[in-house]
Amino acid sequence: MGELSHLDKNGNAIMVDVTAKAETERIATAGGRIHVGPEVYQAIMEGNVPKGDVLACARVAGIMAAKKTPELIPLCHPLLLTGISVDFEPREETAEIYCKCTVKLSGKTGVEMEALTGVSVALLTIYDMCKALNKRMEISEICLEEKSGGKSGHFRR
Amino acid sequence: MGELSHLDKNGNAIMVDVTAKAETERIATAGGRIHVGPEVYQAIMEGNVPKGDVLACARVAGIMAAKKTPELIPLCHPLLLTGISVDFEPREETAEIYCKCTVKLSGKTGVEMEALTGVSVALLTIYDMCKALNKRMEISEICLEEKSGGKSGHFRR
Amino acid sequence: MGELSHLDKNGNAIMVDVTAKAETERIATAGGRIHVGPEVYQAIMEGNVPKGDVLACARVAGIMAAKKTPELIPLCHPLLLTGISVDFEPREETAEIYCKCTVKLSGKTGVEMEALTGVSVALLTIYDMCKALNKRMEISEICLEEKSGGKSGHFRR
Amino acid sequence: MGELSHLDKNGNAIMVDVTAKAETERIATAGGRIHVGPEVYQAIMEGNVPKGDVLACARVAGIMAAKKTPELIPLCHPLLLTGISVDFEPREETAEIYCKCTVKLSGKTGVEMEALTGVSVALLTIYDMCKALNKRMEISEICLEEKSGGKSGHFRR
Amino acid sequence: MGELSHLDKNGNAIMVDVTAKAETERIATAGGRIHVGPEVYQAIMEGNVPKGDVLACARVAGIMAAKKTPELIPLCHPLLLTGISVDFEPREETAEIYCKCTVKLSGKTGVEMEALTGVSVALLTIYDMCKALNKRMEISEICLEEKSGGKSGHFRR
Amino acid sequence: MGELSHLDKNGNAIMVDVTAKAETERIATAGGRIHVGPEVYQAIMEGNVPKGDVLACARVAGIMAAKKTPELIPLCHPLLLTGISVDFEPREETAEIYCKCTVKLSGKTGVEMEALTGVSVALLTIYDMCKALNKRMEISEICLEEKSGGKSGHFRR
Repeated sequence: MGELSHLDKNGNAIMVDVTAKAETERIATAGGRIHVGPEVYQAIMEGNVPKGDVLACARVAGIMAAKKTPELIPLCHPLLLTGISVDFEPREETAEIYCKCTVKLSGKTGVEMEALTGVSVALLTIYDMCKALNKRMEISEICLEEKSGGKSGHFRR
Repeated sequence: MGELSHLDKNGNAIMVDVTAKAETERIATAGGRIHVGPEVYQAIMEGNVPKGDVLACARVAGIMAAKKTPELIPLCHPLLLTGISVDFEPREETAEIYCKCTVKLSGKTGVEMEALTGVSVALLTIYDMCKALNKRMEISEICLEEKSGGKSGHFRR
Repeated sequence: MGELSHLDKNGNAIMVDVTAKAETERIATAGGRIHVGPEVYQAIMEGNVPKGDVLACARVAGIMAAKKTPELIPLCHPLLLTGISVDFEPREETAEIYCKCTVKLSGKTGVEMEALTGVSVALLTIYDMCKALNKRMEISEICLEEKSGGKSGHFRR
Repeated sequence: MGELSHLDKNGNAIMVDVTAKAETERIATAGGRIHVGPEVYQAIMEGNVPKGDVLACARVAGIMAAKKTPELIPLCHPLLLTGISVDFEPREETAEIYCKCTVKLSGKTGVEMEALTGVSVALLTIYDMCKALNKRMEISEICLEEKSGGKSGHFRR
Repeated sequence: MGELSHLDKNGNAIMVDVTAKAETERIATAGGRIHVGPEVYQAIMEGNVPKGDVLACARVAGIMAAKKTPELIPLCHPLLLTGISVDFEPREETAEIYCKCTVKLSGKTGVEMEALTGVSVALLTIYDMCKALNKRMEISEICLEEKSGGKSGHFRR
Repeated sequence: MGELSHLDKNGNAIMVDVTAKAETERIATAGGRIHVGPEVYQAIMEGNVPKGDVLACARVAGIMAAKKTPELIPLCHPLLLTGISVDFEPREETAEIYCKCTVKLSGKTGVEMEALTGVSVALLTIYDMCKALNKRMEISEICLEEKSGGKSGHFRR
């Protein structure tokens, strides 16, 4: 059976030793979506509110959060991220905003947690800015979409 | 149609003025779940790994993240949270861990974002500690479960 | 002669004791400007780049920085800011962007440092996003515009 | 016309991809000044207050802020700064303190934002410690003085 | 037998609910010392190095760390500290620096952790600045010296 | 006589220039202990409280604090830590918990401050979780146990 790498042989949490690992170029893309409902969807996309600002604010929040990952996730290594982008795809038929975050690194460990954190905080920011209109929004399907670089090779969901 | 309260009349992001609002006792509970799959579920719950440590680590991460909410979500107010708890409910049949975060405050604004952030980061921490075993885990159904205090009254999903 | 309140009688830095001060409503507005030059001014305001995004990003950075003031300025008190806004006024004739930040609080100390920090970081963010086009931009005239609440009364520059 | 490198082709903010850039030794020096007026100048420099402490406190604040740059400026890359110094030059004739911050790095992007942030926060700290004596202080001429390393070569203002 | 208040009835960590507690004025003083040895003691106190700067830097670090306590100690509540001072007492006979940190608050919980954190980080900063001269320095006797305010009354060690 | 490397020739604090230093593998281990007294010792180790949670929480706090070292200690360099572990050794006869923190790095400066910070915050977290039972706990003997890598060679206390 597999082993949880973030626990030592006594089951205690550790930040795994990656000293000896090689630096490689790594990319990870994570995605997720928030169901906002039709009223909020309209307010974001078509109202008298310039659509840019909710998503622009959420984009900045996602980028900044990706950089904060090792402060948030206890066993994540500090990393010198070399690129971050956060993109949104409005889906009118389901009244959702889909968010995708891609993170790049030349370093010793993967960056999926950074991408997942970027997505999570971008979606939470949309939630925050729209919560006065709808208390039943829901964030779902946060997952790793794609990952390359490192020993485990290319992964696509 | 409703208005997005975090945008001013020109559509620019602001941290809403709550100076004149009364301080009341407020509670919010948010929930969410991570689907980890059977292998990871076993490793967390029944393996030779003491089950406490993955969830204990995620609990601490969730509590600390709830306190960090105004650093992460751009338009959230700094708040003097008076209580935070993070609980987990393992669901064997679906190979999921459900997480619930309750936040309390005596203050001027609601604490749903703090509860939602606590849940999100607790689930991301489980993801991080188990990702070596499964790249297809998925975080879903992050939403507000219950909220009381403040002008808008009691809400239960 | 006046005294520097942030130094004790031996000249050592302290965070001044405000325990006994009354809570009052306080507002401070600070301003400042960045001279960007005509080429950058065009790129921000009229280029094929939507003007919103540079200023939207700088606005979010300024709001978040105002909240971080006690982490940055060693002797500032932690405060529960109740409102923050950051606004920009493009000045074509001088190829400048003027920035204004207003911060509100119901609390024991003034919020001019929060407003000044918000302005400074908003302007630094514009600098960052435009520096590939011009290495000679300059940030100037960061100062307190107006302040009310607290013992010292209303001030307008 | 030049392009704003921190915006993608749709005008959205990104943290620019520098994965493929070479690591080089980089140095940036930024400067700026605060006009404090004669009374504050005296208090800092010649009063019964040891002059060291206001400037010592501002120096520490500037060094710590330079390290915090990627937390403050949304699109700045995290960097392993290898050296930071902050120096002050009191200018009696104009009742000003001039501040200079030099930052060094062996890495993939320039460090001018770190130097500019260090200067800004050092000057804001002087402001904070002296504001009880003068509400009309002003921070000006924050700009890049010199920069070397990287593709764009040596720059001196 | 007493109970550990930071664990719920299942032994899980929580941030204790203090919503219903009254706000009172609270003060805590903590102390601790670093044994630096004669050579370092001389360098700090009598060398050609102005003694102010090592201790001035450590003082600023201690004050800033006290404000960061809820970010560092997982179950500490965020608090609006109303006063912080850090003082040093050089002890030549034992080649030690004794440090004392006093923290004030008008709020719902005690501030001993803030005072203890301030002392710890101030002493660690002295260690950092002197470690090139002595690898055998030792930090000891970090403890609560005095505490008042709150339900448990006045305490003096 | 030795020199304090963190002060420049005028006695001002600087973050020492390490640009030209080689990257080597470095390890540092620091230790320290908290005297908790028999009642607290029982509560942690043998009570109806699962012993894991106090120490699990302290372990997470220590690991996260080691990563925060350059934010806390003003002149510490930001570093890409490649491994962190925090271990506890309960000592019944003296009613103490001994804590050890080991930090690894491939980089340009030593990591003893990171290890010392990890130990300090882990012990402070134990203090926090147990302080309701005993106000006379004491943290002592925080020191460097071992260090390797870098110019100064191997050190063992």
